[in-house]
Amino acid sequence: MTDDRRRDTTLNDADRALLAAPNFASLATAMADGGPQASVVWIDVDGSDVLVNTAEGRTKTRNMRRDPRVAVCVFDRNDPYRQLMLRGRVAGFEHDGADEHIDFLAKKYTGADVYEGHRPDQQRVIVRIAVDHIVRMGY
Amino acid sequence: MTDDRRRDTTLNDADRALLAAPNFASLATAMADGGPQASVVWIDVDGSDVLVNTAEGRTKTRNMRRDPRVAVCVFDRNDPYRQLMLRGRVAGFEHDGADEHIDFLAKKYTGADVYEGHRPDQQRVIVRIAVDHIVRMGY
Repeated sequence: MTDDRRRDTTLNDADRALLAAPNFASLATAMADGGPQASVVWIDVDGSDVLVNTAEGRTKTRNMRRDPRVAVCVFDRNDPYRQLMLRGRVAGFEHDGADEHIDFLAKKYTGADVYEGHRPDQQRVIVRIAVDHIVRMGY
Repeated sequence: MTDDRRRDTTLNDADRALLAAPNFASLATAMADGGPQASVVWIDVDGSDVLVNTAEGRTKTRNMRRDPRVAVCVFDRNDPYRQLMLRGRVAGFEHDGADEHIDFLAKKYTGADVYEGHRPDQQRVIVRIAVDHIVRMGY
């Protein structure tokens, strides 16, 4: 059926579970010259959006402020063949709540109540990613 | 010393060990419209080059044949804060030995002697990536 092959753009419950678990993701952005850049990130999900928490001034942040197109992939750390690969675009940069959100991620990934990397000279930012292409493997 | 801050473009022994271990990597490529694409891949290292084994016709392969710029990131599955993030460009597509190379990777990652995904209608290809920018975290 053509329906089965339609481009899926909406996260389902299994996708959200993979993103909500403490699995490490990679975030790919576009450099100024158009070449890709990729880094390992903590990841979060909010409804149909994927959230990353980074700091202003970093290469990935500057890239996303210039070009909102990103790709994210994540696999289950307990079964690496369960993989989610998506493309999307930045729908917003959020400073409000960003310090609390990195504490939430620190708790999720490390168990610590407070993120140990807080620095007064560094402004945290939640990057909200609207998903527009999804590929799933292994689940 | 400025030497300590120079852009490192050469894999060292610790980088090679991370790539030689059965750690899953992500490979970012550029879509035709310049947006990034990323997928989870098995990874190998050959001297100063990073090797990926994929198949002709796939999105990532078509992307790399159009635009050789790529980014790779990998983390230690036993300690995800040991991370290697690099940018580079495709230095060659190699069909000779590509079937044997995917068997080598299957052995490395799954323990199987032969890659279970061999398909007669699919041409495997080794993608040789020359590294030109390295970021290390945690080691």
